[in-house]
Amino acid sequence: MEAAEFRRRGKEMVDLIADYLENIEQRPVYPDVEPGYLRSLIPEEAPEEPDTYEDVVKDIERVIMPGVTHWHSPYFYAYFPTANSFPAMLADMLSGAIGCIGFSWAASPACTELETVMMDWLGKMLKLPEDFIAGTHGQGGGVIQGTASEATLVALLAARSRAVRMILASDPQRPETGITSKLVAYSSDQAHCSVERAGMIAGVRMKKIPTEQSDKYAVQGETLRRMIQEDKAAGLIPFYFCATLGTTPSCAFDHITELGPICNAEKIWMHIDAAYAGSSFICPEFRPLLNGIEFADSFNFNPHKWLLVNFDCSTMWVRKRSDLIGAFKMDPLYLKHDHQESGRYFYTDNSLFRSLKMWFVFRMYGLKGLQDYIRKHVELAKEFESLVRADQRFEISADVVLGLVCFRLKGSNEVNETLLKRINNGRKIHLVPCQLSGQFVLRFAVCARTTESRHIREAWRLITQLAEEVMQDVTKLKVRM
Amino acid sequence: MEAAEFRRRGKEMVDLIADYLENIEQRPVYPDVEPGYLRSLIPEEAPEEPDTYEDVVKDIERVIMPGVTHWHSPYFYAYFPTANSFPAMLADMLSGAIGCIGFSWAASPACTELETVMMDWLGKMLKLPEDFIAGTHGQGGGVIQGTASEATLVALLAARSRAVRMILASDPQRPETGITSKLVAYSSDQAHCSVERAGMIAGVRMKKIPTEQSDKYAVQGETLRRMIQEDKAAGLIPFYFCATLGTTPSCAFDHITELGPICNAEKIWMHIDAAYAGSSFICPEFRPLLNGIEFADSFNFNPHKWLLVNFDCSTMWVRKRSDLIGAFKMDPLYLKHDHQESGRYFYTDNSLFRSLKMWFVFRMYGLKGLQDYIRKHVELAKEFESLVRADQRFEISADVVLGLVCFRLKGSNEVNETLLKRINNGRKIHLVPCQLSGQFVLRFAVCARTTESRHIREAWRLITQLAEEVMQDVTKLKVRM
Repeated sequence: MEAAEFRRRGKEMVDLIADYLENIEQRPVYPDVEPGYLRSLIPEEAPEEPDTYEDVVKDIERVIMPGVTHWHSPYFYAYFPTANSFPAMLADMLSGAIGCIGFSWAASPACTELETVMMDWLGKMLKLPEDFIAGTHGQGGGVIQGTASEATLVALLAARSRAVRMILASDPQRPETGITSKLVAYSSDQAHCSVERAGMIAGVRMKKIPTEQSDKYAVQGETLRRMIQEDKAAGLIPFYFCATLGTTPSCAFDHITELGPICNAEKIWMHIDAAYAGSSFICPEFRPLLNGIEFADSFNFNPHKWLLVNFDCSTMWVRKRSDLIGAFKMDPLYLKHDHQESGRYFYTDNSLFRSLKMWFVFRMYGLKGLQDYIRKHVELAKEFESLVRADQRFEISADVVLGLVCFRLKGSNEVNETLLKRINNGRKIHLVPCQLSGQFVLRFAVCARTTESRHIREAWRLITQLAEEVMQDVTKLKVRM
Repeated sequence: MEAAEFRRRGKEMVDLIADYLENIEQRPVYPDVEPGYLRSLIPEEAPEEPDTYEDVVKDIERVIMPGVTHWHSPYFYAYFPTANSFPAMLADMLSGAIGCIGFSWAASPACTELETVMMDWLGKMLKLPEDFIAGTHGQGGGVIQGTASEATLVALLAARSRAVRMILASDPQRPETGITSKLVAYSSDQAHCSVERAGMIAGVRMKKIPTEQSDKYAVQGETLRRMIQEDKAAGLIPFYFCATLGTTPSCAFDHITELGPICNAEKIWMHIDAAYAGSSFICPEFRPLLNGIEFADSFNFNPHKWLLVNFDCSTMWVRKRSDLIGAFKMDPLYLKHDHQESGRYFYTDNSLFRSLKMWFVFRMYGLKGLQDYIRKHVELAKEFESLVRADQRFEISADVVLGLVCFRLKGSNEVNETLLKRINNGRKIHLVPCQLSGQFVLRFAVCARTTESRHIREAWRLITQLAEEVMQDVTKLKVRM
């Protein structure tokens, strides 16, 4: 396929995409396929000779769509949102065509430079402390990662490297091997599973800090302080704490104003993972949730979740870029170039022109448009919360702060599991569960860009209808027994 | 921007992209900007109110293009290729619109399933041993990673996990802490810098195996065997060897038929990194370069380099998927679903619908089309090699096996550095250097999809013209001295 044909096929694809997104709510949000469904629909091997483009396009509906979970359906309420907007898609098209690999400044200066400036734009939207803004002379700054999991790991590795350097500086005779096995990192028992995995990858202890329902699932300063003291007494070296703002199960917020000073005093790297909630901090009314950022060494959230920038775009800021560069720098001749020493551009490996989509989205929405978007989702969540609270059969399981509502039928875990199973098997709406204090809880996250009040109300109608059926079945069962 | 406007803007973007790629050779391939150039061209903050789309599009030429290194120009001969094809771009457009996050089978079955089948298609094109094909009952299979660096790391972590398990199984009393500090991994001194970094991340010793020009920069079995014996004698535990097929500096090939049996005998995980060269193995005439794969535990190469699949698409196969799953598995309730136990789908976290672009590319080119593409690039490299060999002032610095030619002026490193600097400052063609046995060498990699014989000849004309100037200057300088 050459450019001339691409002009035609590309425009057809634009229409196909627009059609798909305009009519997405007609599709069952959750697919009705069994594992292995796809293999039997296509050949076992690649063709020797080219297929026609028409055949490829036909197979989108025949092969792909039946197995798609439609994340951008307004009836999708599972997990957390993943972003999808037209400006971001346009930028991604351009990014694909330029197709540069930005592993150094010289490999594509515009790629590295736009990323640096976009990270400053976004940092300013969030009113991050000056220390995190690169500007022309700053020590800190931002870098795009693929996922929050990556950012957590990168921060952990930088922290490990800094800890080992500090230990060796204070005791130059100490052998370097063996230090890592004494290091200990902390995160909430509510933290995303990738935090635990980051510990596995880095080969360091990662201790989970217990949280309580009575504390709204937030890590308490007292608990962290006690664990640090116990670990130090046992000869371990605390070096990293990953705070979560907006946990995956219930969107809980660790008290970083209280935890930050403890970390600073103990020279523990505090990383803040606000993967979902971070986008909301561009609104003045939600910005207080980020208070305490001034104690952090690094901070991360995902514009690809809730800020209309398509996957992947996970934004990470560090107070000292040198901490990252020190932990990862490699220097082969094939990556050297004349501007090697302009160190401000070399945080870690950048790789794609991901900043283009930030630029398109920020400009096409404007800060106000982005704030409106966040506020609308929070309002929709509040609307759903009101519906739940007005129904005596249900209870709310955690404070509704942003776009997530955790709720359940008053009753056993089994009855809630059954309810969720029926909801998802209906394929009209899609939710996933979480566990809070041993209870099986349903998570209702406002996700799609196009979700409106009518979708929320329709979802609630479906949920209550199925709840009624489930409760009738339970009653019948009891009568029979 | 809603769907109706996207229909219009998307079609304009299709034309913009086609125009860009059709006329790319008119642009200077390497940008003429200084670090920091971009910041002064755009505002310091995001706009409060939306900009117009027209302004955004105008800024592509004003702000972005002056700082782009044009990787898809037929005059780009730096690094290794990065892929770019129209079918892949069409698939990426669709993937962006579907925008699903495939972190589990249920999160988007089509995403996980197509990936599994495409990895089988590609594995069969490469004639991988049956063990690496998932099929419906296989123990092995493939998974897409973002980069070869990631694959190297993932393999290293799986190997570390397997090694620790094996050690604990043979000596259950041994404390787990401390094992890692005894582990030792190996790779060629020619391996990509990311291999060394993988060792840093995993916190294990990564020893570089010395190679010689006389051995064509290939790791020798004898050297590996000796290092293993010495390390074992010193109480260390060899556990991982990363072989390279097609090194970054000179496209050298480690002797895996010789190295593999050593690794197998010592229970060392052999990973093969063929990031660039791997694509060529779909041609029967280059497939012998992969002989020895039958001894490997994992294998990786980048279709996003040389197989027309846009970044990112780094394909990795493992002999036993359980080794990967065991090393990374996490199990929170929010990721559970009814088909949890269909283990064949859960290699590691998949994340994007990256298999769509493999599917589009494989079908639109067919195996023959892809083979033709590889062969054409190799022929162009051979053509360039002939031009170099015919000129007495130059020498070839390493065997030309695929699309990379390493060459230099007979003379000092300084004269070659000067030549390269003038080549790149001319901005008409772009090359990067490497170091081979202490010599500064120029790398000429055939990269762009649209490179033809006339571009190669024009590049050689420019190089010889600049070489003449450099040599005249050197002579003048000598006369003056």
